[in-house]
Amino acid sequence: MKVAEQAGYDAWLGRRALTDKDQVSSLTDWASRIIAEESDECIRTAAYELTETITAWTGRRPDNAVPADGGGCLRIGTFQGCSEVASAFSEVEMSAVQADGFRLRRAGQSIIIAGSTGRGVLYGAFALLRLIKTGERLNELDELSNPANGLRLINEWDNVDGSIERGYAGRSIFYAEGEVVPDLSRVRDYARLLASVGINGIVVNNVNVHREETLFLSERYLPRIADMANVFRAYGIRLYLSINFAAPIEMGGLATADPLEEAVRTWWKDRVKEVYKWIPDFGGFLVKADSEFRPGPFTYGRDHADGANMLAEALAPYGGIVVWRCFVYNCKQDWRDRKTDRARAAYDHFTPLDGRFRDNVVLQVKNGPMDFQVREPVSPLFGAMPHTNMLIEFQVTQEYTGQQRHLCYLVPQWKEALDFDTHARGEGSTIKKVADGSLFGRPLGGFAAVSNVGDDANWTGHPLAQANLYGYGRLAWNPELAADRIAEEWIKQTFGDHDRVIKTLLAMLMSSWSLYESYTSPLGVGWMVKPNHHYGPDVDGYEYSMWGTYHFADCYGIGVDRSVRTGTGYASQYHRPHSERFESAETTPDELLLFFHHVPYTHRLHSGKTVIQHIYDSHFEGVKGSEALAEQWEGLKGLIDHDIFEQGRSRLQEQIEHAKEWRDVINTYFWRKSGIADEHGRTIY
Amino acid sequence: MKVAEQAGYDAWLGRRALTDKDQVSSLTDWASRIIAEESDECIRTAAYELTETITAWTGRRPDNAVPADGGGCLRIGTFQGCSEVASAFSEVEMSAVQADGFRLRRAGQSIIIAGSTGRGVLYGAFALLRLIKTGERLNELDELSNPANGLRLINEWDNVDGSIERGYAGRSIFYAEGEVVPDLSRVRDYARLLASVGINGIVVNNVNVHREETLFLSERYLPRIADMANVFRAYGIRLYLSINFAAPIEMGGLATADPLEEAVRTWWKDRVKEVYKWIPDFGGFLVKADSEFRPGPFTYGRDHADGANMLAEALAPYGGIVVWRCFVYNCKQDWRDRKTDRARAAYDHFTPLDGRFRDNVVLQVKNGPMDFQVREPVSPLFGAMPHTNMLIEFQVTQEYTGQQRHLCYLVPQWKEALDFDTHARGEGSTIKKVADGSLFGRPLGGFAAVSNVGDDANWTGHPLAQANLYGYGRLAWNPELAADRIAEEWIKQTFGDHDRVIKTLLAMLMSSWSLYESYTSPLGVGWMVKPNHHYGPDVDGYEYSMWGTYHFADCYGIGVDRSVRTGTGYASQYHRPHSERFESAETTPDELLLFFHHVPYTHRLHSGKTVIQHIYDSHFEGVKGSEALAEQWEGLKGLIDHDIFEQGRSRLQEQIEHAKEWRDVINTYFWRKSGIADEHGRTIY
Repeated sequence: MKVAEQAGYDAWLGRRALTDKDQVSSLTDWASRIIAEESDECIRTAAYELTETITAWTGRRPDNAVPADGGGCLRIGTFQGCSEVASAFSEVEMSAVQADGFRLRRAGQSIIIAGSTGRGVLYGAFALLRLIKTGERLNELDELSNPANGLRLINEWDNVDGSIERGYAGRSIFYAEGEVVPDLSRVRDYARLLASVGINGIVVNNVNVHREETLFLSERYLPRIADMANVFRAYGIRLYLSINFAAPIEMGGLATADPLEEAVRTWWKDRVKEVYKWIPDFGGFLVKADSEFRPGPFTYGRDHADGANMLAEALAPYGGIVVWRCFVYNCKQDWRDRKTDRARAAYDHFTPLDGRFRDNVVLQVKNGPMDFQVREPVSPLFGAMPHTNMLIEFQVTQEYTGQQRHLCYLVPQWKEALDFDTHARGEGSTIKKVADGSLFGRPLGGFAAVSNVGDDANWTGHPLAQANLYGYGRLAWNPELAADRIAEEWIKQTFGDHDRVIKTLLAMLMSSWSLYESYTSPLGVGWMVKPNHHYGPDVDGYEYSMWGTYHFADCYGIGVDRSVRTGTGYASQYHRPHSERFESAETTPDELLLFFHHVPYTHRLHSGKTVIQHIYDSHFEGVKGSEALAEQWEGLKGLIDHDIFEQGRSRLQEQIEHAKEWRDVINTYFWRKSGIADEHGRTIY
Repeated sequence: MKVAEQAGYDAWLGRRALTDKDQVSSLTDWASRIIAEESDECIRTAAYELTETITAWTGRRPDNAVPADGGGCLRIGTFQGCSEVASAFSEVEMSAVQADGFRLRRAGQSIIIAGSTGRGVLYGAFALLRLIKTGERLNELDELSNPANGLRLINEWDNVDGSIERGYAGRSIFYAEGEVVPDLSRVRDYARLLASVGINGIVVNNVNVHREETLFLSERYLPRIADMANVFRAYGIRLYLSINFAAPIEMGGLATADPLEEAVRTWWKDRVKEVYKWIPDFGGFLVKADSEFRPGPFTYGRDHADGANMLAEALAPYGGIVVWRCFVYNCKQDWRDRKTDRARAAYDHFTPLDGRFRDNVVLQVKNGPMDFQVREPVSPLFGAMPHTNMLIEFQVTQEYTGQQRHLCYLVPQWKEALDFDTHARGEGSTIKKVADGSLFGRPLGGFAAVSNVGDDANWTGHPLAQANLYGYGRLAWNPELAADRIAEEWIKQTFGDHDRVIKTLLAMLMSSWSLYESYTSPLGVGWMVKPNHHYGPDVDGYEYSMWGTYHFADCYGIGVDRSVRTGTGYASQYHRPHSERFESAETTPDELLLFFHHVPYTHRLHSGKTVIQHIYDSHFEGVKGSEALAEQWEGLKGLIDHDIFEQGRSRLQEQIEHAKEWRDVINTYFWRKSGIADEHGRTIY
């Protein structure tokens, strides 16, 4: 069986025939004709998607004949390009539609999808299909939707050899054996998935740019990368590249990559010119510099602003941008050095540079100060650089959150970060407002995230991990959406409208992050994972290493003192009241206690439990929760696709066994270390 | 510069001109003529080695003219093949020379090297050169030397892709890119080194036989392996192959590898026939079966005897043997299972099979029950299988003992094992007598060891690690040799006769094993290493894994209870008095305490220290000892080859830094865990 025909490949865009007869008949009155008069590529794509989907749903292929009889139709187009579309809206209504936004409206027998750009029309088309598939009635349809964020990026950590850094769903869909894959049909299907949730930019290679990928900027690779850009363009997605800061040396043969050196600047300008020759709407560069052994401006006594601005200057004439990652810390820290605190690093490195970056530079800041842990506080950089563009970076691929073998729906985690009130401009200064640029009035902003897809037939390995990709896109479009609303949308589109299926999966997804947290990393401590691959428990795995990731557990207590009074002072990187709240163990929320404070095992949490008893209880409960997940899943037998059911079943069984391993390693470790027995006398080995 | 011309390549066989004029003149009277009348290949090799070396030493090339004038000569040959040789000895003297043995004798102006075989003559030649080089006077020369062990094997863990499992000195000298190397001159130089210390068998491929090496038994590889065998044959060394027990399936296309299946037995017989067609003196097979995921007879409900005997039957007609490894344990043990004890495994698996193995099967038993740890007790299998042939296996490559970056002269460790009195037949039942077969009157026995060489110019990476290869061979020939005597021999042959050089290096070598033990693994506990690569400290690295390697440290104490009364019962696998001695913490020697007992940190050792204070003290002292090593080495500047000096210096610096890492990780771990402070208030992080 071809991969595209296998279970899960269609993801949330599956086109099974609609079973609700009312719904089918409500479609037929307007959906038998689809009128798209403009030649814009995204509008053509929108018309194609609508046509194919409606055909599959109803069994009848819409035509494109303009209804002479005043009958209904589906009309799609821009206000500027299509007078019939424009005539359905007032001036005020039209001007309310921002770039990429759209309006959907019922007008008599017809439905209208309107945008100010072709891309907006495409998003409107996917929105309409989503509404139908999730069972919305369209009689009173009148919807305006603008994306909250200008940049809605996805980062692929794919390498040209076909491997994927932190990929858990097979090999790359973009590359194999040192080349872009010859057949881009799967890339196109990925573009559909991304466009359907509003993604408008893709970085097609790993932020760790190795020797070979450095040459992506050359004619060796650009023709085929341009082919990929063409595929994405049809779905409104601009292509970006991760670059190697040392490319002028490694590829250009220069003696230096000093960003203030004229020859270097010229070299980059020439490269950028070449790239735009092949890809006229190229998005720009993503840069991981001076981070984890990657080269950067520090080598030449320059700073991040020097480096980023040089690239930005080269890109500016073409409308390109520089996305500069802030994941910068001393990754050769000596574990014996108790003064250096990795959590502080991004803030300490970047805040002094506020205002120095060009307007087409945007800093990409991970949601937390460490590295995509199950639980960590938000990065204090959000709210600390009012004169700098900023993107928030999430990790859809589940590096530290179960690697798509465990279920972990991450939208609730992301929501917590987005809703965090930095107080940078007083109350209401949420991180989502920093990211979208509104808080500080920045011209650029948005979301970025590391993708979780590979060439597994179902894209994400774990069939339910698709929800994270879906949710990421939806949240990038509208951070106000609730996590459960997103989950429900995804479930209905993916599995249909069976009530038990919806309720079961919704409950499973919504409980899964807390569940994963419960049996892995207690109270915000993080990093108790096996080094390198990061799968499975190893409490001391990063304790005596150079990565700046410690818990300092001894026979009395555990945690990192990041207070100002007695610790590393990290707490002061937040605005009040957070800086004060995190300063004291009494006011720090339980779930972050060990991130901010070193406390005795007998310290009593707000929950009323001691730290040690919390550790024991949560780990025992975590296994029970995993068993409950598997039981819930069993209830879906016969109600969902058989193959998907079996995929999920085997992963959930692995989750149970692995949750036991987590439970027992963590409990045994702390029992041995603390000497404090479980109050309930359960088995600790 | 060619590799063969680089420092260290000559190892202990360097041929620098002799500087002692007396010595040169004492040579010239007999060494100007070398008479070797037999055509035996080993005797030709002996003549060649003697000629080349004496030429280099004296500046004059010996001729082979029989002295007509009654003047001196060097006459070499066998008693049977050369009447002049035979006439120098009585019947009794001749019959005292066993296979591979030799006599050296001064006879008037001449020197005679005599053996009962060509191989014996070759060993005699190397022995004579060693005597001269180590400054012995030959006036009264009259030496008889017989090897204690019939089998003196070296195991290469080389793979055909050129990698070496647990190799720390570069890539393979045998293979590159899937082929035997085209130029075998380095293999020949290795054969010289091995023959010079009496090695008589080499297993040329890794015991873990992968897909490609399985085909070594086919014509795809046999022609080139036969070329290697030819090279080794000239130096008296038989070639052996490691085989894949599942070869009948993987290579032969059979449905089974069941050793009792007639088709399987026939397949092996055919393969053996083919091998002997190419290599008439082929030594036999080395087999790692049912061990660490390797296939074996268990799959078919058969036992090790069934498996080994099937192969032995195929080899017997040609004089080949089966070397069957006893490194068998449950490598998927659950760490939560406290009943299974890996230390027991080999004994429990093999002792029930005593008497079942054919006479041309020999079991290869690692020196200790675990896996070449810095310190472990001897394997109780020695002395437990009186009706079975047995080899003792050592690890010359320093997997757990510093990986040839740290100095660790292992001969003292091996001596301890060999001198261990099993009491199997009452007092004096030492392991060396088990290995050589004399204790139980076994027809086969001896030594095997994993080599430490690679394609580094100096063979072993660390220049002083050559001493381990040298020492292994010497000990296999004569286990009675003292460790310091072997070291001194090696130093003199390698570095010359400068008194300060000899004293310094002797002190460094002799202290190095205890030193490495002091800052790594305290009191026999073992396994506190980083998983997989085994370099550097990770106290819990193997604590929660499936490998059966635990220390059970908690906040009160540490160690594995292997007593009969309260533990796994492993202590009972020894004969009395050891079983009784190891049963109690009071009578267990300090250095093995934690191997046999779980004790509180406050337990007082025979040394008078508590366990915890011993841990602290030994680790602080270990760093000082490493610094002392480097200082001693500095004193050799100008006295030894400059390149070797620099190689050693850089390794010794790394040793210091790494000893600090060991010290700090181990001390911090136990301080945090026990809460007991260092009595001397030194820095623990």
